Amino acid sequence: MRWIKGGVTAAAGFAASGINAGIKTSRKPDLSLVAARQPCSAAAVFTVNRVQAAPVRISKARLQAGAARAVLINSGCANCLTGPAGLKDALAISRSVASALKIPERQLLLASTGIIGRRLPVAKVVRAVPRLVARLHRQHHEVAAQAILTTDLHVKEAAVEQVVGGRRVRVGGMAKGAGMIAPSMATMLAVITTDAALPASLLRRLLRQACDVSFNRISVDGDMSTNDTVFALASGHSGVDVRVGRRAEALVTMLQVVCGRLARLIVQDGEGASKLMEVWVRGAGTEREALCCARQVASSPLVKTMLAGSAPNVGRLAAAAGASGARFDPARLEIHVSGVRVVARGTALPLSAAVTRRLLDRPEVPVVINLHAGRAEARMTTCDLTAEYVHINAGYAT
Amino acid sequence: MRWIKGGVTAAAGFAASGINAGIKTSRKPDLSLVAARQPCSAAAVFTVNRVQAAPVRISKARLQAGAARAVLINSGCANCLTGPAGLKDALAISRSVASALKIPERQLLLASTGIIGRRLPVAKVVRAVPRLVARLHRQHHEVAAQAILTTDLHVKEAAVEQVVGGRRVRVGGMAKGAGMIAPSMATMLAVITTDAALPASLLRRLLRQACDVSFNRISVDGDMSTNDTVFALASGHSGVDVRVGRRAEALVTMLQVVCGRLARLIVQDGEGASKLMEVWVRGAGTEREALCCARQVASSPLVKTMLAGSAPNVGRLAAAAGASGARFDPARLEIHVSGVRVVARGTALPLSAAVTRRLLDRPEVPVVINLHAGRAEARMTTCDLTAEYVHINAGYAT
Repeated sequence: MRWIKGGVTAAAGFAASGINAGIKTSRKPDLSLVAARQPCSAAAVFTVNRVQAAPVRISKARLQAGAARAVLINSGCANCLTGPAGLKDALAISRSVASALKIPERQLLLASTGIIGRRLPVAKVVRAVPRLVARLHRQHHEVAAQAILTTDLHVKEAAVEQVVGGRRVRVGGMAKGAGMIAPSMATMLAVITTDAALPASLLRRLLRQACDVSFNRISVDGDMSTNDTVFALASGHSGVDVRVGRRAEALVTMLQVVCGRLARLIVQDGEGASKLMEVWVRGAGTEREALCCARQVASSPLVKTMLAGSAPNVGRLAAAAGASGARFDPARLEIHVSGVRVVARGTALPLSAAVTRRLLDRPEVPVVINLHAGRAEARMTTCDLTAEYVHINAGYAT
Repeated sequence: MRWIKGGVTAAAGFAASGINAGIKTSRKPDLSLVAARQPCSAAAVFTVNRVQAAPVRISKARLQAGAARAVLINSGCANCLTGPAGLKDALAISRSVASALKIPERQLLLASTGIIGRRLPVAKVVRAVPRLVARLHRQHHEVAAQAILTTDLHVKEAAVEQVVGGRRVRVGGMAKGAGMIAPSMATMLAVITTDAALPASLLRRLLRQACDVSFNRISVDGDMSTNDTVFALASGHSGVDVRVGRRAEALVTMLQVVCGRLARLIVQDGEGASKLMEVWVRGAGTEREALCCARQVASSPLVKTMLAGSAPNVGRLAAAAGASGARFDPARLEIHVSGVRVVARGTALPLSAAVTRRLLDRPEVPVVINLHAGRAEARMTTCDLTAEYVHINAGYAT
């Protein structure tokens, strides 16, 4: 498997486009389209928030059929808490895009991201649709990836290729994240494309597996949004049917690698984030406890501010582990930070503040927490909590 | 019932003392003692963190007997993650204090707060014990309350009196909080005293009831500490036996009022906090769902940063409610902020940003979230998340 360029259009059969339709006043791209030449197998993972944006409800219904031709995403407005009017807005825009693409409306999937509680400027968006569709091109993956960003600073793209069953298969994608990440994939959007051939039911299963070890293993602020969606489209253009032999395993690995890279880019670009922490929990009694513990540590504001300030206060890691509900004997707890043991047999080792500070003062800090209570393990990636996060979120929407 | 002065020594039979023993280098008071003239009924609520500080383990064991004469608390060092040595340290100090007080060691309760993973300077503390005990006085409640503070800016005291069964009964207390508040009473300490007469088993039940609607209903950063403890001592000096008639109801109300005031002082003094939000969830299907929903809203970093910046982004309230697991029909969701309806029938009302900003730009912001799914309700008090919180916690321990 090797990394390639091309993002969401790296796989054969896809084109993309991104323009400013006037939803954002900043004139940055705010309308993104990914379209396939033929109908694709399609699947998605959606937010589990009880309050769901209009496009989430529409896309869920359309995905029952397991087929789609295109994905339309706008940034700058979440189209959520907008009631029946918001549904009508989304449908009006959907109608206009489907008609310009000359595809049945039910084959268009929708997502929105941005401020909750505001209406979409439907007339503006509809006026922009011909321009959006006219600019569809395989080269336009980057501007399409730009058009889905909100407070993100950087475009997030990834793509890989691998020979499967004697032919080249590609998987690519784009994502947005920044704030409100985790648990369960909170405010993020991603579109993943592949030219492998497989039915929607299998694609759904593989996509969920890939999300479980990527987008569901990152934490920026522990909030969960109303709009999270990961779409996957499979064009079949490679001619490689993954139902044959062990090809599905190859494809899920590719999906995991692409989703994993996009997830990592999301944390790196977390609102105000200046560094990353990889939290490995080992020796847990069950996988569920391992993940619970990793999630609690990765989401703790005290751990995240400790990371921000390189404050030599590793006790916060133990406190978060102890608060997680995972069962372990505190007298056996062992913690390593940046490869150095800082807690052994439940006791903090006498490291100087200067030494501990050096362990934390690096762009990526690996933390291993061994509960010595079993064999299960889990990993989460998180970023630090900085004053910049607060500035961004106290000011957003102004 | 009326508010009175006197804090933890307002009830008859108690004296207090607070000095600097050299644990904190700042020379601020760091050692606090509350002592009763005679053995008291005693009860406590402890942290449920699996990692528990040495003093928590000692006090738990001693409280099996249901009796105590004194509570010793130090700030500046949590005596947690200190292993067998930390237990020995706590016992050495306990021995010295019990001996100076001329009480059996098992009648002394202990608590510590401060940095995790550091050892207590036992020799210094033991040297300070005669001075600490010599200064015990009914007037010294305020310096005792000062000596338990860490990053708190203000002393937290409360006391009430009421005539019960024809005689005056008093309940008073002191607390520390600031960071790491909630869920389940995370990093806070409190000592509650009363001159009512009741057995330890009843005191334990009433204390838990009072904590459930006070300390367990506040949220500063959602972290849970290794040292949380609320102690209650009942001296019986009023001569009012609360097992008679409906006196237990009167006492639990007094406990709730004192704990409620202390809890509120903790949130007001939350690390970096500049304002409060009262989150009322109404119309929930069950009490558990109501509390779950209130807790999720009160703990959401996005809600708390919105409050900090008075950012007119009330959709975040709906998103947090939807993420809580409480069952409701999003199309019936209703939200009021500062008395003004901002969401009706699941739809954000078209208020101008300036109007919404005014609703949030006040020292106390009441939020009512009606799920229209039942009759249960719950309340949480929270504070805003400011850049100051990050500065405090990124720098703590330096």
